[in-house]
Amino acid sequence: MSRRLQTLSDAIDFSSPENEMIAIAANLADRLAQSAVERDQTGGHAATERAWIRESGLLTLSIPEEFGGQGASWATILQIVRLLAKADSALAHVFAFHHLQIAGIELYGNAQQRRRLYSATVAQKLFWGNALNPLDKRTIATRTQNGYLLNGIKSFSSGSVGSDWLTISAWDEATQSALIAAIPSTQPGIRIQADWDAFGQRQTDSGNVHFDHVFLHDDLVLQAPGQVPTAQATLRSQIAQLMMANLYLGIASGAFDAARNYTRDKARAWFSSGVSAATEDPYIQHRYGELWLLLRPATALADLAAQELERTFRKGALVTATERGALAISVAEAKCLAHRAGIEVSSQMFELTGASSTSSRYGYDRFWRNVRVHTLHDPIDYKLRDLGRYALNGSVPEPTAYS
Amino acid sequence: MSRRLQTLSDAIDFSSPENEMIAIAANLADRLAQSAVERDQTGGHAATERAWIRESGLLTLSIPEEFGGQGASWATILQIVRLLAKADSALAHVFAFHHLQIAGIELYGNAQQRRRLYSATVAQKLFWGNALNPLDKRTIATRTQNGYLLNGIKSFSSGSVGSDWLTISAWDEATQSALIAAIPSTQPGIRIQADWDAFGQRQTDSGNVHFDHVFLHDDLVLQAPGQVPTAQATLRSQIAQLMMANLYLGIASGAFDAARNYTRDKARAWFSSGVSAATEDPYIQHRYGELWLLLRPATALADLAAQELERTFRKGALVTATERGALAISVAEAKCLAHRAGIEVSSQMFELTGASSTSSRYGYDRFWRNVRVHTLHDPIDYKLRDLGRYALNGSVPEPTAYS
Amino acid sequence: MSRRLQTLSDAIDFSSPENEMIAIAANLADRLAQSAVERDQTGGHAATERAWIRESGLLTLSIPEEFGGQGASWATILQIVRLLAKADSALAHVFAFHHLQIAGIELYGNAQQRRRLYSATVAQKLFWGNALNPLDKRTIATRTQNGYLLNGIKSFSSGSVGSDWLTISAWDEATQSALIAAIPSTQPGIRIQADWDAFGQRQTDSGNVHFDHVFLHDDLVLQAPGQVPTAQATLRSQIAQLMMANLYLGIASGAFDAARNYTRDKARAWFSSGVSAATEDPYIQHRYGELWLLLRPATALADLAAQELERTFRKGALVTATERGALAISVAEAKCLAHRAGIEVSSQMFELTGASSTSSRYGYDRFWRNVRVHTLHDPIDYKLRDLGRYALNGSVPEPTAYS
Amino acid sequence: MSRRLQTLSDAIDFSSPENEMIAIAANLADRLAQSAVERDQTGGHAATERAWIRESGLLTLSIPEEFGGQGASWATILQIVRLLAKADSALAHVFAFHHLQIAGIELYGNAQQRRRLYSATVAQKLFWGNALNPLDKRTIATRTQNGYLLNGIKSFSSGSVGSDWLTISAWDEATQSALIAAIPSTQPGIRIQADWDAFGQRQTDSGNVHFDHVFLHDDLVLQAPGQVPTAQATLRSQIAQLMMANLYLGIASGAFDAARNYTRDKARAWFSSGVSAATEDPYIQHRYGELWLLLRPATALADLAAQELERTFRKGALVTATERGALAISVAEAKCLAHRAGIEVSSQMFELTGASSTSSRYGYDRFWRNVRVHTLHDPIDYKLRDLGRYALNGSVPEPTAYS
Repeated sequence: MSRRLQTLSDAIDFSSPENEMIAIAANLADRLAQSAVERDQTGGHAATERAWIRESGLLTLSIPEEFGGQGASWATILQIVRLLAKADSALAHVFAFHHLQIAGIELYGNAQQRRRLYSATVAQKLFWGNALNPLDKRTIATRTQNGYLLNGIKSFSSGSVGSDWLTISAWDEATQSALIAAIPSTQPGIRIQADWDAFGQRQTDSGNVHFDHVFLHDDLVLQAPGQVPTAQATLRSQIAQLMMANLYLGIASGAFDAARNYTRDKARAWFSSGVSAATEDPYIQHRYGELWLLLRPATALADLAAQELERTFRKGALVTATERGALAISVAEAKCLAHRAGIEVSSQMFELTGASSTSSRYGYDRFWRNVRVHTLHDPIDYKLRDLGRYALNGSVPEPTAYS
Repeated sequence: MSRRLQTLSDAIDFSSPENEMIAIAANLADRLAQSAVERDQTGGHAATERAWIRESGLLTLSIPEEFGGQGASWATILQIVRLLAKADSALAHVFAFHHLQIAGIELYGNAQQRRRLYSATVAQKLFWGNALNPLDKRTIATRTQNGYLLNGIKSFSSGSVGSDWLTISAWDEATQSALIAAIPSTQPGIRIQADWDAFGQRQTDSGNVHFDHVFLHDDLVLQAPGQVPTAQATLRSQIAQLMMANLYLGIASGAFDAARNYTRDKARAWFSSGVSAATEDPYIQHRYGELWLLLRPATALADLAAQELERTFRKGALVTATERGALAISVAEAKCLAHRAGIEVSSQMFELTGASSTSSRYGYDRFWRNVRVHTLHDPIDYKLRDLGRYALNGSVPEPTAYS
Repeated sequence: MSRRLQTLSDAIDFSSPENEMIAIAANLADRLAQSAVERDQTGGHAATERAWIRESGLLTLSIPEEFGGQGASWATILQIVRLLAKADSALAHVFAFHHLQIAGIELYGNAQQRRRLYSATVAQKLFWGNALNPLDKRTIATRTQNGYLLNGIKSFSSGSVGSDWLTISAWDEATQSALIAAIPSTQPGIRIQADWDAFGQRQTDSGNVHFDHVFLHDDLVLQAPGQVPTAQATLRSQIAQLMMANLYLGIASGAFDAARNYTRDKARAWFSSGVSAATEDPYIQHRYGELWLLLRPATALADLAAQELERTFRKGALVTATERGALAISVAEAKCLAHRAGIEVSSQMFELTGASSTSSRYGYDRFWRNVRVHTLHDPIDYKLRDLGRYALNGSVPEPTAYS
Repeated sequence: MSRRLQTLSDAIDFSSPENEMIAIAANLADRLAQSAVERDQTGGHAATERAWIRESGLLTLSIPEEFGGQGASWATILQIVRLLAKADSALAHVFAFHHLQIAGIELYGNAQQRRRLYSATVAQKLFWGNALNPLDKRTIATRTQNGYLLNGIKSFSSGSVGSDWLTISAWDEATQSALIAAIPSTQPGIRIQADWDAFGQRQTDSGNVHFDHVFLHDDLVLQAPGQVPTAQATLRSQIAQLMMANLYLGIASGAFDAARNYTRDKARAWFSSGVSAATEDPYIQHRYGELWLLLRPATALADLAAQELERTFRKGALVTATERGALAISVAEAKCLAHRAGIEVSSQMFELTGASSTSSRYGYDRFWRNVRVHTLHDPIDYKLRDLGRYALNGSVPEPTAYS
């Protein structure tokens, strides 16, 4: 067993059911890995593979046991996100964002909403998608009897294609604020456009969702317009951010392993190196040391942040702004380190494997393409600013959809 | 006129004919740019575009005027390589390597070979390809009457597909050394396989060349087996290395301009930046400053090295090992800086343009893919070792095919 | 209470006695800080301050309770090293190396030696120094009746000046190996030369120790010549390495706090920054974020390594080569990160404080000078090689005095 | 002759008189080097060494030949600054700033002032100091008959101690703008305080100048209050900035040579390196390559900028804002690269020389201390912002005292 997993096992409570879930995830990752290079080339919607995820039972991980879910800790869920991302970061993203929507129900919803939506998710094996991009205010909510009418477009809607339900946000002109709601993807008037065409994370189904006179019943409104979010509610963006960090780390780790295996099995010593195997080259050894020093701290801090998220999340409505702020700092640290580990490992790996490793049959460029696209979710410079302000003044980040 | 061009114009003697050639190259670059994104996707042999290059007249740039060529300086040729690479680094490589083969005739060949091959190249608008990879010793030369029989394979043969003539190397078992020769690509027994499948530089036609009982006449042997190369002959690898540097710089410069245009025209200010335009963001401005500090010194040193190459090359057989060594240091400096400028600008540019810029319709990932593949030609760590040995001990790099 | 301390408190078992020891250390650090700038200027032996350390009772921290010591965990001891180093890294080094010698008795000595030397250390408040530099083989041990005669010199002997006892190594010509022993600093023939004159860590008393026909009784030989060290015995170098890491981190943390306080209290906004306070400058905030990202991961990994050391150390003779190897990797990770955090924070801090902060009255250059000198203990490149070999091949570092 | 000098000789017109001046400077540098380590320790005013500079004749370098000066090009003057800084960066700064004051007379003064002040400087071997710090507005000019009365303090007045004349700025309350003037250091009411106490650049005589009812005659006012500076006048800050760049480079180059000599002559191979000499260590060679790649581009761009300064400066009153802006970009490029080369080479050099090289007898820490203090003249982040704005928008830096 690799040392990285040992480290994780120190940090995680391997109660028997969670342990089993990790084994299931590892098996799922192996299956996804078989076709990951090919599906990265073709792009589009991975219907078959999403069915595997659905059938794996892992979609109920984050749902409390009392509603038929598995009540897994965030440490476990994020470990599984990382494990899947190592094999296929696009589907890992879809998987992670499903659980982000579930978390949204927990954080924004009332008791009735939780019960109803959780039970349905367990019973019907629902797959949730995201249509919540808060920077895109083109979807307008207009008050009508018992609810709202939704009109407009929502971009960057990860996992929307092929989803059963969506979490959405919509702009309420009256209050000049957003509402947040759950809605079936099949609700009349909703059209999900499979038009995501980025050069990476190609199977994240992150298309545009169009709303044409869509009726949203009040029962499904998780956060009403004008409602000031509680400290608890603002945890959602931290979950999203830590999911990103683990997705980046999964990619970095996948790239690292691919490089290592190539160096060991296929690379040849440089003709003037004076050594007979690439693994004996002093510069190659040194570079692996450098990449390791990117990967290890990022992983350690992501694990520490996951534990802090778990503690904070479980406090429910009692979570304070101070605790939320401390978590946001830990998550920002982990995310910045993971961002850099991802970009650097996926780009520098080729210095360790050489020209022949660029053959398309290996598909090694997908690591950089995937992490390059995904790390643009929000600018690292503003994370660094947040960290700097904290280090300088002790001030925690203002709760937003990105911090 | 941009400052980068101003700088070049300081360095270059804009005698009228060369000036005209640069204008022709700029026009060619514009045409290549139209379809560069699309052709990067499809890969394969760019027959139409290679015909444009052939028709442009630029294939005779490096041929002395006395043989009907244009006698351009290396500064001009390398400037044109950079200019083309900004638009299409794969075809720029094919173009550059054509001139590398011409240089090989100058450096290795005798007076008769030069006259004959130069004249034919001018008269028949020949396009030369490379089959000289010195690390691949699978092509064997066996002595026969008036020449050699060639058998085996040669990999990484840039520009071989679609070429008229090749420069080749082959291993002579008797002397345990390589011969270097020119040969028509259509010589019976030669089969050029269009199997290059790297994730970048996709249209460089860098396939495998197969030799099956190919007869090579002594008249075409530029450097016989066992012949110790002169200091002049060893200039060839420095030309190749400086071509690489300019190809990397062209890619870096293309990426930089693409990013700048996107930031100016399409990017939006980050919601918490406190400014209204991405161009006003202090972090974005700072990052452009950083990328500029990668690009400018690399360009300046590439230009200085081009001038030094020109002076050294024109000394012909009189060039000394010391002069060759000094040139190798200048070229190594430029190549290392260009390598890093290429990798960093093409990867970091996205921090400046954001998530929307990853749409496949822009094809901005091609910059990183192209420069990532191309910078693996030979390991940067061994260039740094060469520079370090020089800085420490004053020793110049041992002349090899890579240094 | 700062977050860094909070983080530590998560990791450490604050049983009441250790908690008290940390309070004593914090008080001692405050006293040392008063004169640290002045003593850095004068250098030499800090007799008064070493008396404070002796009187603090902290010299018995690492001695088991059964012998009258405090049985503190390595996590606590290393936290105290860091705390002291923040105020005065030279005396913190002397303090740390005292405990390293105690650990040597535990790891190399037999039951009788432990009992005798521990009891004496507690009863007489002994201060131990180091004369063990394994790369300096100029001290020769010659077999004589009931012991050895020692002759020669030992360099880099930290804490030797002013010590009561020394741990030493000496080269046995007969077996071509080193013995390790304890010896009173006042043993006839020992002369300790206060000639340490580095530009940093000036009060570490790291002079040369001269041996002139010094008699060493067999009872004091902790490891006989020719004896193959056990896995347990080889833990000593890991303790030394992790002490280094915590010393570097203490310096980094001291530099960081000094800079932050200066930026907050004295620095002025740059005239063209558009902000009215240095703390509001976007680049200054960003730079604090960057330095934080050097400091935090290094601290987190040092804490994790301290816990692993504690677990491994407590296994005593049962520790395996595998466990020792895993610890060596964790320690190497922490040391590399601490090395870089130290060098970078202490050099970059001035970009955040400006020209006026270079006044000698602040003595801020001492951070860089101290960490620059101390990080040269052994080359970081060979640590990176060790990490790279592990990452590539899974091989753990060969146990040496430095790895 | 070293390659760095060869490169310089390509760039510089070695007309015989300038060539001779460089030889004189080289000789002076050798003399300064003898005592540089010792004088760095003692600090204070280097009266003897300043007398050497005065006697060398180099103080008239920048004065036009028609006034008895030597009419040296900026390329030559800056080369000499670098040469002196390699040996003694504090006195090199005093030397450089003398010429900056001379340049100020050229740029701000009228024909009569030039003639009078130049002639006096030549005839009396005057040494000029600086009291012009524009960010310090505590020195007030009050209009009186035929001139002004000056009262207040001026900080960071480099070279003021021991000077014969000063260039000063003073704040005119009436116009809310500064005047610039020349004044004898011995003018009644002027008191120059030798209170500079930074940890580096210790002998730059950069104390506070106190003005107590000092009469300034109108004849000595170079730029009257309220006068809008011409493009020509604003060249002064670019000269100052390029002097900084060359001072940093001189320090970097001195550090590099010190390290190289130590590695070659004194350093020992690391015990587990597998090589027998430090110069053969692959990591040491690689690191020298890296430092070389910091030093070389910075030097090349400083030389290019010096040539551009020379061309621009000689245009006199005809210089345009566009030309001045282009020069400011070239100077900013050179200064940023020199800043980083200085800081990194002077800090990283120790990784190449090891613990023994930190002995105070070598004084190698002075390189970092000197360049660390001097690079704080103005923040590099705002230089990067200027470069970024130029790269993004084509806008040149606003002319200020720092840009």
